[in-house]
Amino acid sequence: MARVVVDVMLKPEILDPQGQAVQRALPRLGFEGVSDVRQGKRFELEVDGPVDDAALARIHELAESFLANTVIEDFTVKVEEEMVEAGK
Amino acid sequence: MARVVVDVMLKPEILDPQGQAVQRALPRLGFEGVSDVRQGKRFELEVDGPVDDAALARIHELAESFLANTVIEDFTVKVEEEMVEAGK
Repeated sequence: MARVVVDVMLKPEILDPQGQAVQRALPRLGFEGVSDVRQGKRFELEVDGPVDDAALARIHELAESFLANTVIEDFTVKVEEEMVEAGK
Repeated sequence: MARVVVDVMLKPEILDPQGQAVQRALPRLGFEGVSDVRQGKRFELEVDGPVDDAALARIHELAESFLANTVIEDFTVKVEEEMVEAGK
């Protein structure tokens, strides 16, 4: 079993009103020096079995077709931890 | 300038209906072997100046007080890339 993380962010050229709202609120809250904020989604998937190249390719396909809207969003897939102990 | 990433996820004991909806949809879409999905938020902050311990402490405070609802959410702060070239 392994945890695979898919991060989905709006492409740099796409306006991100949520991120902008956060960024503009920061000085008011006393936090200076943050010039940009982008807000996106993080998916943590618990995948059964070992995450080999075939499994990773499937997850990539899943992210591309289902978790991200690739017209406006970029995504990254990474294996965060491989749990090899018995019973996990 | 540096990019700092704040990941905000619901605590493990908190029900995550969005993640569940994704997880339940997967077999229907032909993706088997994903036993759990959690959906959270990812914030990418462009921070001016070097990210030293003081800056990191401030960002931690920001995440705790503003980006995450610590009653139901956990967060992690990590410096993703430090841009040291002139002009950045």
